[in-house]
Amino acid sequence: MTNSVRPGTDRGLLIVLSGPSGVGKGTVCAALRKCAPDLVYSVSATTRAARAGEIDGVNYFFKTKEQFRSMIERDELLEWAEYVGNYYGTPRSFVEQTLNEGKDIILEIEVQGALKVKEKFPEGVFIFLTPPSLTELESRIVGRGTESEESIRNRMTVAVDEIRLMEQYDYAVVNDQVELACQRIQAILIAEHCRRERVLPRIQKWMEEVH
Amino acid sequence: MTNSVRPGTDRGLLIVLSGPSGVGKGTVCAALRKCAPDLVYSVSATTRAARAGEIDGVNYFFKTKEQFRSMIERDELLEWAEYVGNYYGTPRSFVEQTLNEGKDIILEIEVQGALKVKEKFPEGVFIFLTPPSLTELESRIVGRGTESEESIRNRMTVAVDEIRLMEQYDYAVVNDQVELACQRIQAILIAEHCRRERVLPRIQKWMEEVH
Repeated sequence: MTNSVRPGTDRGLLIVLSGPSGVGKGTVCAALRKCAPDLVYSVSATTRAARAGEIDGVNYFFKTKEQFRSMIERDELLEWAEYVGNYYGTPRSFVEQTLNEGKDIILEIEVQGALKVKEKFPEGVFIFLTPPSLTELESRIVGRGTESEESIRNRMTVAVDEIRLMEQYDYAVVNDQVELACQRIQAILIAEHCRRERVLPRIQKWMEEVH
Repeated sequence: MTNSVRPGTDRGLLIVLSGPSGVGKGTVCAALRKCAPDLVYSVSATTRAARAGEIDGVNYFFKTKEQFRSMIERDELLEWAEYVGNYYGTPRSFVEQTLNEGKDIILEIEVQGALKVKEKFPEGVFIFLTPPSLTELESRIVGRGTESEESIRNRMTVAVDEIRLMEQYDYAVVNDQVELACQRIQAILIAEHCRRERVLPRIQKWMEEVH
């Protein structure tokens, strides 16, 4: 990776992007796909049926329940959860393979799932996407216009609990504007590749060659 | 600082840019002045006489030897050194004042001086500028065309010793191209402002206001 602002390192980085429901994780990730085309997106495994147009290995890795359970048993998932009768999870092999190819991979996931990933993959870079304020988060949830007052109150309570978990993350990116949030995430990627502990092995290599 | 990729934080960051002689610290700093106009540059104190056109408080803080020694005694310098009969040092007050105004300040300094700053100011962000290889550093030193073979050998020995000190720094930025090195330093600045421990106090503040 010469002539690139991202310095050449042998191994890629796992970026975990999380944050409370309603903060705009999906929108920021969609914007990142445009401005950071080299970034690979983690593909989840699921037991739900493929919908029209969905491709195995692109949208999801489609698995039977038996296959999924055996992945759990063999510790092949960085995290998994059951939702409305189906399993969803993050296959470790796809992440590892991408990192070994020297590419960075991003995983967009809810707050609890991200913390499970951290247990199995502490060397990941954990980014918490936060609203500019609680008022702003509430107006985004209300703005969808699909939820009852009670449901909004419940979601706000959950969001507040989730924001408390921010302290287990490495970075907190304020999603005040999607483009700015994207630029911050890209800056974090470049900076993480410049961290001394990541660059040092290469330098030590050429120091040994001389002496 | 709204509408800025640099998230609003109350206090600025001290960036210490160092690296072996010949690596191009001055060139990178000059380029940064253009592409990062909001960054403040640390002004050194010195006992040497002002040259034509030099302005006190802009190029240097010009001090008498007596004044300088009393600054040392009162611990008013983040680091200092004697060079060819004159004192040079970094006044802490200028750095603190800039940080309290919420501005980032950069200090370009040789490797030993940077490590002295780290003792007094561990919360700084320490960036080591490294050549792409030792061969490249040697050709840059030779390229100046002003040094004897022995002097080049000596400088390379010093450089190798200095590069070993890289492990005390937070980041290692490869100076393969000046513009890329600048972009990496700017990315590090943005990322450091997004570090969870820097953002968290603001978030906790608006969490308290609600509950």
